[in-house]
Amino acid sequence: MSPIGSLLWRHLRVYQIYGSNTDVGKTIFTSIFCNASSRLWKHETIAYLKPVSTGPEDEADDNHIGRFTNGVARRTLYQFSQPVSPHIAANGNVISDERVLKSVYEYASERASAGPGWLFIETAGGTHSPGPSGTPQADLYAALRCPVVLVGDWKLGGISSTLSAFECLKIRGYDVESIVLFEDEKYGNSDYLKQYFEEQYGLPVMALPTPPPLDNGSSKKNDHELMLEYYLQASQAKEVEETLVHLDDRFKSRIKALESMTGEAHQKIWYPFTQQKLLQPKDIVPIDSASGSYFQTLVPQSFEKPTGTSLLQPSFDGSASWWTQGLGHGNTSLTLAAAYAAGRYGHVMFAGMIHKPALDLASSMLQIAQNPRLSRVFFSDNGSTGMEVAVKMALRAARTRYGWSPDTKIDILGLKGSYHGDTIGTMDCAEPNTFNEKVEWYEGKGVWLDYPQIQCVAGEWQIQAPNEFGTDCNHRFPHLTDIFNLEQRIGYGDHKLYEKYILSTLQRHLDEGRKFGALILEPVVLGAGGMVLVDPLFQKTLVDVVRQNPSIFGSGNSRTRPSDNRSWSGLPVVFDEVFTGLYRLGRPMAATFLDSNPDISVHAKLMTGGLVPLCVTLASECIFNAFASEEKSDALLHGHSYTAHPVGCQVAIDSLKQLQSMDKSGNWNWAKSNGWLQANNDIYSKLSQTNPRVWSIWPLDLIQWISLQTKGVAGVWAMGSVLAIHLRASDGSGYASRAAEGLRKRLLAGSGSVSIGSWNVHSRVLGNVLYIMGGQRITEQEVEEISKLLRIGLGECL
Amino acid sequence: MSPIGSLLWRHLRVYQIYGSNTDVGKTIFTSIFCNASSRLWKHETIAYLKPVSTGPEDEADDNHIGRFTNGVARRTLYQFSQPVSPHIAANGNVISDERVLKSVYEYASERASAGPGWLFIETAGGTHSPGPSGTPQADLYAALRCPVVLVGDWKLGGISSTLSAFECLKIRGYDVESIVLFEDEKYGNSDYLKQYFEEQYGLPVMALPTPPPLDNGSSKKNDHELMLEYYLQASQAKEVEETLVHLDDRFKSRIKALESMTGEAHQKIWYPFTQQKLLQPKDIVPIDSASGSYFQTLVPQSFEKPTGTSLLQPSFDGSASWWTQGLGHGNTSLTLAAAYAAGRYGHVMFAGMIHKPALDLASSMLQIAQNPRLSRVFFSDNGSTGMEVAVKMALRAARTRYGWSPDTKIDILGLKGSYHGDTIGTMDCAEPNTFNEKVEWYEGKGVWLDYPQIQCVAGEWQIQAPNEFGTDCNHRFPHLTDIFNLEQRIGYGDHKLYEKYILSTLQRHLDEGRKFGALILEPVVLGAGGMVLVDPLFQKTLVDVVRQNPSIFGSGNSRTRPSDNRSWSGLPVVFDEVFTGLYRLGRPMAATFLDSNPDISVHAKLMTGGLVPLCVTLASECIFNAFASEEKSDALLHGHSYTAHPVGCQVAIDSLKQLQSMDKSGNWNWAKSNGWLQANNDIYSKLSQTNPRVWSIWPLDLIQWISLQTKGVAGVWAMGSVLAIHLRASDGSGYASRAAEGLRKRLLAGSGSVSIGSWNVHSRVLGNVLYIMGGQRITEQEVEEISKLLRIGLGECL
Repeated sequence: MSPIGSLLWRHLRVYQIYGSNTDVGKTIFTSIFCNASSRLWKHETIAYLKPVSTGPEDEADDNHIGRFTNGVARRTLYQFSQPVSPHIAANGNVISDERVLKSVYEYASERASAGPGWLFIETAGGTHSPGPSGTPQADLYAALRCPVVLVGDWKLGGISSTLSAFECLKIRGYDVESIVLFEDEKYGNSDYLKQYFEEQYGLPVMALPTPPPLDNGSSKKNDHELMLEYYLQASQAKEVEETLVHLDDRFKSRIKALESMTGEAHQKIWYPFTQQKLLQPKDIVPIDSASGSYFQTLVPQSFEKPTGTSLLQPSFDGSASWWTQGLGHGNTSLTLAAAYAAGRYGHVMFAGMIHKPALDLASSMLQIAQNPRLSRVFFSDNGSTGMEVAVKMALRAARTRYGWSPDTKIDILGLKGSYHGDTIGTMDCAEPNTFNEKVEWYEGKGVWLDYPQIQCVAGEWQIQAPNEFGTDCNHRFPHLTDIFNLEQRIGYGDHKLYEKYILSTLQRHLDEGRKFGALILEPVVLGAGGMVLVDPLFQKTLVDVVRQNPSIFGSGNSRTRPSDNRSWSGLPVVFDEVFTGLYRLGRPMAATFLDSNPDISVHAKLMTGGLVPLCVTLASECIFNAFASEEKSDALLHGHSYTAHPVGCQVAIDSLKQLQSMDKSGNWNWAKSNGWLQANNDIYSKLSQTNPRVWSIWPLDLIQWISLQTKGVAGVWAMGSVLAIHLRASDGSGYASRAAEGLRKRLLAGSGSVSIGSWNVHSRVLGNVLYIMGGQRITEQEVEEISKLLRIGLGECL
Repeated sequence: MSPIGSLLWRHLRVYQIYGSNTDVGKTIFTSIFCNASSRLWKHETIAYLKPVSTGPEDEADDNHIGRFTNGVARRTLYQFSQPVSPHIAANGNVISDERVLKSVYEYASERASAGPGWLFIETAGGTHSPGPSGTPQADLYAALRCPVVLVGDWKLGGISSTLSAFECLKIRGYDVESIVLFEDEKYGNSDYLKQYFEEQYGLPVMALPTPPPLDNGSSKKNDHELMLEYYLQASQAKEVEETLVHLDDRFKSRIKALESMTGEAHQKIWYPFTQQKLLQPKDIVPIDSASGSYFQTLVPQSFEKPTGTSLLQPSFDGSASWWTQGLGHGNTSLTLAAAYAAGRYGHVMFAGMIHKPALDLASSMLQIAQNPRLSRVFFSDNGSTGMEVAVKMALRAARTRYGWSPDTKIDILGLKGSYHGDTIGTMDCAEPNTFNEKVEWYEGKGVWLDYPQIQCVAGEWQIQAPNEFGTDCNHRFPHLTDIFNLEQRIGYGDHKLYEKYILSTLQRHLDEGRKFGALILEPVVLGAGGMVLVDPLFQKTLVDVVRQNPSIFGSGNSRTRPSDNRSWSGLPVVFDEVFTGLYRLGRPMAATFLDSNPDISVHAKLMTGGLVPLCVTLASECIFNAFASEEKSDALLHGHSYTAHPVGCQVAIDSLKQLQSMDKSGNWNWAKSNGWLQANNDIYSKLSQTNPRVWSIWPLDLIQWISLQTKGVAGVWAMGSVLAIHLRASDGSGYASRAAEGLRKRLLAGSGSVSIGSWNVHSRVLGNVLYIMGGQRITEQEVEEISKLLRIGLGECL
């Protein structure tokens, strides 16, 4: 099933009618709207949809509409005879949420093709009444992003149920555009609600007289006449007309705002990492909302559009929203976690204080790290600031142990192509490159080693070493897992060559008088540097060489290896797991691929599940103690105002819980068994036959197939949710290369011209590399659809 | 009225009973709990409180409890005879929310003094039913932070109302600890809810049989007996016992967690800006929650505590949570804004895309800036990153105009004691000081000028100029507003002296061959540098001198002033309004105090009302164009993953709206008329007699009084919500001074030993400066109470 779009057509006003309780008059108000809109928009078509209905068919709301309106198209999608909640009425006959959404979409689409008009979609029961699958309706329908008319509750307690229903819709991103309810003098709910919603949200509330009391069937005809009369009056009421005009206006404003966004953005926004001289308004993608793995984006206006084409289309979030997204857009659990902390604390200052979300997150991260060295948690706002903190920590630890003065020039040791952020301190950790060469205050403060890379080329997994390593380091393996089997590789060929290369290079720089204060690595994958998969054996060897040779970095007593094996030795080892950690590569910690425990470890992005910025820098007690003194000025004088903001911490706690629970309950077994499990000659965990050492959501046969397109593809790899395709580039392989642009554009054009539905893939390129990154909640079916499009795209572009 | 504490005593388990709808059995379940807890905790006291009751007194819930329980203490605080919502029943007899909370607190406190036991507080109607003032109950009682037993709805539609009620409580920071409801086979609500809450929240749901059908009064005695029998059975039910044991357990866990937090934090957290060797667990303040202007903090365990002393106390957030707080902790509107964006988008990647919250915030900030130069908005995560961006912008603009190569050494021009953040790039913008002198990679890249400061000393407002200015610059003014009357001061004495000093200093450095790339200022107040109020005339003059003398900074054509007066001239002028902007000093933009329009302006902190991190760097089109080229690598290659995260943007939009609306509707008139208005010889705005040029929430007579304590006070000033007291320090006036510690501790000891209630003030010091910063929603009464404590504290400490 292809992904489902939100409901937005240029000439069909679609409104969803939610009830703040059961029995508040949803059908009656909908009938009034049908009648009034028929009258006011004479030449347009009016339609009514009841997706799910329970109770005897002749009492169905659909029939009520039939009896009391004229010329209204109407449909009930799923009818159950028992007058109970649909999840019970369905009685085991499970209808998936996707099925319901698809049917609603299809009906709305059909109506849109029929020409201008209105469509009123009436929900069942209260806001949160379960749909057929048991999912509460407010969650079930959220992705359709229909604007809402909320029917308030006029009875005793109705203020409460109306406010509650409103808030539940709002926190799921619904736009409630109007509230309507019956008048009742005794309780005065409508007076209260009018004032409340006007003051709080500037939202109109319409109150109408209650329908006439009916004799419950004893004289049906008379009842019918009474109701007809009521409807006649109500549908001509000034308030009803005003409400419909307001709804019409809001509908048009929404489209207008969406369509004008790119022009305005082009004038007001200064985009990150964007040469705006090359950016036209038409290149900017307007996002209406996002749900699960998909954005809902405005279909480019230049496209030829037949009547009834939706203005929005699902667009796969192929960069996982700059590598942050893990648990799906619009994840209600994360929303509630954020809101809980906002309600309980807001932000509370952190220096010298403690609150539960910060402490729980600290404990949780230390537990997940499974690294006996790490004992301390420092909070900051993003990967860049977290790495600034890490560098400050490491340099101070090295400087104090080695007895250097504060103004000593200290370098870091890293890998070529590393990237750690955009603030000056972290830029200085990267070798000179496109990102920094023109930045005025950039001065690379380090030495960056070359290293062997891994790619799948023409069906084989290759280790490609730079020339200086000699050809002995180039190897081919049938499976990626063999390369990651470090235990087997240690002590042999490559390992020895790596040791030799590293030691001699280090010695050369030390002989020149350089001083090093940290070894900084992105474990396994260099992200922004071009999605480079590094031979993990090389990184492990680098860490080991640094730790086993403390004598080369300092002098005197400080040159011996500390007796406590949780202390740093040689250099403080910093792992930047901002991108690679927390399941992005398939494991909680990327460090475990290297079988190495860093002294400092930095985590962000996925930590907050793709919702808000937050970063933690984990450190060992030994590093921490380097700042201990009687002098306040020796402390780590770093801190942002929103340090450890409770909203971020609470969201992170919930994210980690969700990720760990998915891991534990085998949520990714479908992916692991897509070739990755079979490729294992041995097993990563002796406890489970289902846990391959290396795996990806991207099926192994897709990787193989891509690697065989050798005309255009230089190599490919996948791990966890990341797929990276290195394209052959005549203009060089750097960030400035435009080799991958064609494929990116093809994926963005999407499925339109092919036969798998109407949606596309929004991906990002890094020079000649196109990568696609899913969230951790991506489904097997989604991967299949994207794989299909990818094969088509590669076929057409290469 | 002193602030109200949350309800937490060591031996009194207080639970609030909320109903997910009206008529769901709150009173019946409460009776069951009363009976069962009496039975299970024989030697303890059980109490029942109905804060607000409507309907005939003999039908009151209180009476029901009386009839069907034994030995339960019970109280109704406010009884209204009409059986309608309290806000109507109160019938104009308005009882303030504070009054209700105070009464509840007093009763609970009384019960806590009576010894160990339980207190059940039954709310009225549904979760969101309004209290007597009209405030929805869920908001009204939130500050008490009672854990909740939510009575679910067993009727048709009850799943919806139960989920809705639960979510409304959760987003206000309530901990719902148990859900209870009646069983009903037909609707099966309890089965659904048991599964739902177990899966989603690990929360227990208890279902009990419905009470016997009663004959509605025709045989009251029989009914009574039936109910007695029902209660007898129910209160002995295993489920009820389990629920109470669970509630008891949760109650104890909460206290245990609160009391163990400091120890754990001391071991795991690495605190910002803290010499942790000097930090004991007892110095760490555990925060249970925060509401309005107050934290709820754990009372230090070393304190002598009589029985019935609350474990929590209100603690005034005197640093405005590190200068972020503006709209009160637990601001429901901000919570809903955050949750709406989380539900609608989650985070969506920003490069090349646009979404409504980002665009609306950009438009809103440009509009608020009222600066014709500014046209572009760049997003980042905090003040430090936003300033890094600003510096990158300015340096590039200067370098390209003046034709310097990328590796030219370029300095910034700033003021001594400036502070712009903790990332290396922004640290480099500050002169060498305590914050940076030991940071390995710090290299001050600039020239920092000295300047005249303003303080109120011995009842007079003084301009104190550094020696190099000569004594002619030292002046005394009766009112602060006179100093801010730049129009009158320009062209005379000081102005000329300032010009001369600035030009000669600049020329000296330029003659040494220095190149400057930016003028960077915190307008009006240097925050972290020690809460220094700078003579605005000096800052204005500095900007003017730089702009009027472009020829001194460059060479050739670039030396002439651009014809477009929105272009930068001389140097790009960067205003760091992270702290000073957005009403912190009483005006939307601090730049207006200087009557100067910067080319780049940075905003954070208050922008998101004190909830989540977000920053914008506003820039002129001229600055923006400095990055335009055909080369991608000429772009501003900066960006964080969560750039323009919708949650932050939406919260900021709401914050700005709240602040602007407060401004517009005269919310601060009480403060302005506390001496500030009278001090104006002329008026800031000709449109309104209520708008002084300078004002503060801190009354002018308080400032005067403090300034007269010359034995210990060197000077004092207040603007907007900031009050800064500069204490005389024998150990120097720098960050390392401990002169203000005594006063800080005295405020933290709070009102305990004095007679104005039991609460305290949590404040921060910067060396010899103690400052107190309120939020923008602070009330006159709160200011009064704090002023009293401050007078007492100063009296005792000096």
